[in-house]
Amino acid sequence: MNIIHTPSEMQAWAQACRRQGQRIGFVPTMGCLHAGHLSLVRLARRHADRIVVSIFVNPTQFGPHEDFSRYPRPFENDRALCEAEGVDVLFHPSPETMYAQDRSTWVDDSALSTGLCGASRPGHFKGVLTVVAKLFNLVLPDVSIFGQKDAQQARLIQRMVRDLNFPLEIILAPILREPDGLAMSSRNIYLSATERKDALCLVQALCLARDRYRNGERTAAPIIAGLRRHLSETSSAAVDYVALVDDVTLQPVERLDAPALIALAVRIGKTRLIDNLMLPDPTLCSLPMN
Amino acid sequence: MNIIHTPSEMQAWAQACRRQGQRIGFVPTMGCLHAGHLSLVRLARRHADRIVVSIFVNPTQFGPHEDFSRYPRPFENDRALCEAEGVDVLFHPSPETMYAQDRSTWVDDSALSTGLCGASRPGHFKGVLTVVAKLFNLVLPDVSIFGQKDAQQARLIQRMVRDLNFPLEIILAPILREPDGLAMSSRNIYLSATERKDALCLVQALCLARDRYRNGERTAAPIIAGLRRHLSETSSAAVDYVALVDDVTLQPVERLDAPALIALAVRIGKTRLIDNLMLPDPTLCSLPMN
Repeated sequence: MNIIHTPSEMQAWAQACRRQGQRIGFVPTMGCLHAGHLSLVRLARRHADRIVVSIFVNPTQFGPHEDFSRYPRPFENDRALCEAEGVDVLFHPSPETMYAQDRSTWVDDSALSTGLCGASRPGHFKGVLTVVAKLFNLVLPDVSIFGQKDAQQARLIQRMVRDLNFPLEIILAPILREPDGLAMSSRNIYLSATERKDALCLVQALCLARDRYRNGERTAAPIIAGLRRHLSETSSAAVDYVALVDDVTLQPVERLDAPALIALAVRIGKTRLIDNLMLPDPTLCSLPMN
Repeated sequence: MNIIHTPSEMQAWAQACRRQGQRIGFVPTMGCLHAGHLSLVRLARRHADRIVVSIFVNPTQFGPHEDFSRYPRPFENDRALCEAEGVDVLFHPSPETMYAQDRSTWVDDSALSTGLCGASRPGHFKGVLTVVAKLFNLVLPDVSIFGQKDAQQARLIQRMVRDLNFPLEIILAPILREPDGLAMSSRNIYLSATERKDALCLVQALCLARDRYRNGERTAAPIIAGLRRHLSETSSAAVDYVALVDDVTLQPVERLDAPALIALAVRIGKTRLIDNLMLPDPTLCSLPMN
């Protein structure tokens, strides 16, 4: 496995690869890899000849009071996991090589980023879109895989690829869950043993919503009320948002007649967790007890 | 010459070209081609195997009271000029194929776009950067040529290519001028015979500034005062801005010790014209009577 540390070397590798007619599959990550990330790598492998994984804790997508500095960076472990998956290139640049001090160009969105996580994390998606645009131009992928876990991010990236005509395909991968249903996340390692149990309230609430939907409920208000009621039973849980939105526009809906997304952000202690459920087709969200 | 009307066909052509190992040179234009544009095409030819010219009057870079609808679109003439120059592909998309109705992704700049034309044309450079990013992703050039005539635009594009890591090179081409010194511009055709004569006040003012610089003047204030005084002698001329800025940051400077740009925007009647001079090296601005 080739470990590349600078943008210019990454781009040179990608251009050489392209000249040889090989298809590049790309999985961008912030490291602290878990089985969810590895499932993205395996999915990429099915669509490409060469696989690039990037590990870059992107400073521009963290707010001033967020966890940028304490975000876990277990590089040696991540390296070994990528090696074991047969990744061709691990791209691991420094913030200094990625961002000029006088940087001033940004990619941003004016519609899909305003609600959900965008409302509680101002500037977050501007940072995400900018760094992903940069990574696409450096890795030159034919296909790039994003996880449904970050549902809003995935839809923003798909929108960016369409709007800016990036010459690549985005594939979404299902949420991977722990055996008890908790959605896998690098931030789960922040949880204490008690918080780890409390964190199950997210997936439990989504299962309740799914069951109400299966029983014929098509009005958003009682579903949201049921979600909030369940979450309120966990005293360490502080709801950031509970939203039922159109799956394309991410605007709130009152009725569940078109494809919709139920999205949650909940703080368990100091750790902010997210999870979601797509309806009518919940496949990508892989809730337990289907 | 191949005329391509849709983004998907343009991208497919570019990808096929890339697979064959050919270098693509790209000249983006809004059409109404003049000798200045053709000089960009010839410069592109020196750096590439295949030449793409785009003609797209981009609606998102015009303000609500600007000349989008009346901007000249002499397509048959433009087509003949491109054909005569040996252009390989003329890309001529419609606004409808370029922009989805629910587009929401934008490229913008937070530093170089705030002054000069950016101050008088709010949103203009956001539209420019977004469409150029789209065109780069559709045409996949190895090299793209921009004219020094639009000095601020050229520096913004160079900054975007650096900041977003586009895998291509930007080359700036010198301003082309009419025999009497007027900078060539598609908008010159708006000028009446009298206005055409009055329009010479821009290049004359720049020549005066250059002469003061040659005589040792290094303080911005008297140079700007001299420019304004000269422009005020033409009664049909209404100054939009006269600025002396650092050539990299585009921020106003008080002294001419580092590379600087003198930039003008002046309305002659209803027609807004721009021109500029780089110091100490004025080569790209090709003022007369050097």
